[in-house]
Amino acid sequence: MQPFRAPERHLMGPGPAPVAPSVLAASAQPTIGHLDPVFIALMDEVQQQLRQVLGTQNPYTVPISAPATAAMEACLANVLEEGDSVLVCVNGVFGTRLAEMARRCRAQVRELAFDWGRAVEPEAVRAALAEQPAKLVCWVQAETSTGVLSDSQALAAICREVGALSLVDCVTAIAGVPIRIDEWGLDMVYAGTQKCLSAPPGLAPISIGPRALEALAARERAPQSWFMDFNLLGGYWAGEGKRAYHHTAPVNAVYGLHEALRLLLEEGLEASWERHAANARRLWAGLEALGIRLAVPEAERLPPLTLLEIPEGIDDAAFRKYLLETHGLEIGAGLGQFAGRCWRIGLMGHGSNEVAIGRCLRALADGLTHFGHRADAAPALDAAGVAA
Amino acid sequence: MQPFRAPERHLMGPGPAPVAPSVLAASAQPTIGHLDPVFIALMDEVQQQLRQVLGTQNPYTVPISAPATAAMEACLANVLEEGDSVLVCVNGVFGTRLAEMARRCRAQVRELAFDWGRAVEPEAVRAALAEQPAKLVCWVQAETSTGVLSDSQALAAICREVGALSLVDCVTAIAGVPIRIDEWGLDMVYAGTQKCLSAPPGLAPISIGPRALEALAARERAPQSWFMDFNLLGGYWAGEGKRAYHHTAPVNAVYGLHEALRLLLEEGLEASWERHAANARRLWAGLEALGIRLAVPEAERLPPLTLLEIPEGIDDAAFRKYLLETHGLEIGAGLGQFAGRCWRIGLMGHGSNEVAIGRCLRALADGLTHFGHRADAAPALDAAGVAA
Repeated sequence: MQPFRAPERHLMGPGPAPVAPSVLAASAQPTIGHLDPVFIALMDEVQQQLRQVLGTQNPYTVPISAPATAAMEACLANVLEEGDSVLVCVNGVFGTRLAEMARRCRAQVRELAFDWGRAVEPEAVRAALAEQPAKLVCWVQAETSTGVLSDSQALAAICREVGALSLVDCVTAIAGVPIRIDEWGLDMVYAGTQKCLSAPPGLAPISIGPRALEALAARERAPQSWFMDFNLLGGYWAGEGKRAYHHTAPVNAVYGLHEALRLLLEEGLEASWERHAANARRLWAGLEALGIRLAVPEAERLPPLTLLEIPEGIDDAAFRKYLLETHGLEIGAGLGQFAGRCWRIGLMGHGSNEVAIGRCLRALADGLTHFGHRADAAPALDAAGVAA
Repeated sequence: MQPFRAPERHLMGPGPAPVAPSVLAASAQPTIGHLDPVFIALMDEVQQQLRQVLGTQNPYTVPISAPATAAMEACLANVLEEGDSVLVCVNGVFGTRLAEMARRCRAQVRELAFDWGRAVEPEAVRAALAEQPAKLVCWVQAETSTGVLSDSQALAAICREVGALSLVDCVTAIAGVPIRIDEWGLDMVYAGTQKCLSAPPGLAPISIGPRALEALAARERAPQSWFMDFNLLGGYWAGEGKRAYHHTAPVNAVYGLHEALRLLLEEGLEASWERHAANARRLWAGLEALGIRLAVPEAERLPPLTLLEIPEGIDDAAFRKYLLETHGLEIGAGLGQFAGRCWRIGLMGHGSNEVAIGRCLRALADGLTHFGHRADAAPALDAAGVAA
């Protein structure tokens, strides 16, 4: 068996996003012990970095040693007990997943459905809670399946009014759009490393606020998961002298996350949000120049991830295969209702830049010509001033 | 905030073990998409490698995208339903953990206790099962907390006789001592990457045999965990054309695991077992030359991890701090009943070699002299022929 050689790819799908060379290099430093004082100090730094990035003073702000899917489940499994009522806003795949996971926690789950490709409507949530209260309300701030941004600030305010806890999926939101946990009053947030943080996939930052910790303390039964039990995990992240063994942290992945967070904070959080927004507008203009329709109304679009309609007559899989094989370019397929109808283009983290936009638009133009959809796609980009 | 610079450490604790440079380099290759055909082909290769290493044809042999602690829980949560009877053999921390996790799955848990520092006794298990049957029997083949090896072959035979399923913790066993899933008839096995496989921590190989899959198919209720649901995970690892999205695999960690498995298979599995055994004997002889007592009877000792008694009058924490700061050497503290009474020295994977043994023994000798325990420790090693 031969050593694996990773091909050169331009990652412009829904994640993983391209990882900066210094992040890859950081993660390839020699492994040290997870109980080493130097590693414990690094864990403390990562927690501080995450607090800055998430806009919170929550002491309980740590990366879970598993993908964001596990962090989603961890939040639910810690706060929900059998029979608890939970309202899940569903406007895409990840809302659907939240509801399914909550059912496995034996909660009473109500799904509040919104059109896919549209934001969660705060007034609908208010009405649903007036009709029947819930212990927990869940939504996805940045729906990775549809490229839609929902208004976490407005939704959190409604939760506060009625005394419900909030759980927010920030997987594609983190570092790409504003998240202000303390200012908005979010109770639980989970995120991923492989989107706008531009670290390799595998870890999942979470932040747990005081009201959620009170709910956890008031549980009658221990959470169904030992690996994800926030009481035990909190002890593991408690710092030098107080730390209790729980599992072996993925040491090298934490090195990489630290470097990714350092790069982000060096750029500045607001600068990162603005960069994601400005580059998204550039991409949208270029797609429109190609005559490609964007599937989400502009006010609800997610800058890091754009949902676009597949031009008529184009074979979804064949076109993406061509992009990958001819241009080394990965864009994302549609998910759920959008499978075969839409693509997703990510401009995330290290990958949100003008070179990537030009490359993507030029590759799309070439593909449209190759598949006989539009002969003049490249000239249309020239006319729109897109770099060749 | 400054970039993190990992210190140089000699890892000779209970894990993580030292990682080969080519494994670190492999994991630092550019991230590619987890749905990329090249990555899916890599996932297939990793599954083949794991089958070889675990001695099985089980199609369901994959690395879980999380630490071994999660894999332990995943096995229990998939096979156990509320009220199921499970017999857990407890001879250390990880048996205790298995029992606690099984309780969180709402199973009826019986713990069969053995002295810490001693192996699980097959005849005691046979008697316990005769007295009361169990759906599942769990044990730890290589107890990382005590450095003890139990006889999985004998224990599996007993399970087969009575029709119980077996679940075996092979975290420190994999690549360090023989595991022959098919020959012995083990039903479920989980392992870790950061011990004798010498990959960074963060992934956990599992292998699930046909009888366990039948039990999974016969469940009345879906497993309590969605992230760890083996039905969903199996779809994710099903290969090109059949793969169903579940979570985002930790792409770079899988690169590293592939390279670590490649190195192991290049050396040869039996050669690796023999190397671990031979080096363990060298370490034991050297420790005895220093007058240090080994805490486990020789027939039950685990070659990759040795439990030794802290010499009288030595301050546990101060001594280990001295080794770390003066020699860059990490050895492990005792856990549970052995905290403050014993240390653990690992000779795992890439770290099981004569240079490491000499360095460790010389550092221990220096420490014993430094702390006034024994002035002639170094000459004792000279006399025993330990390399300086």
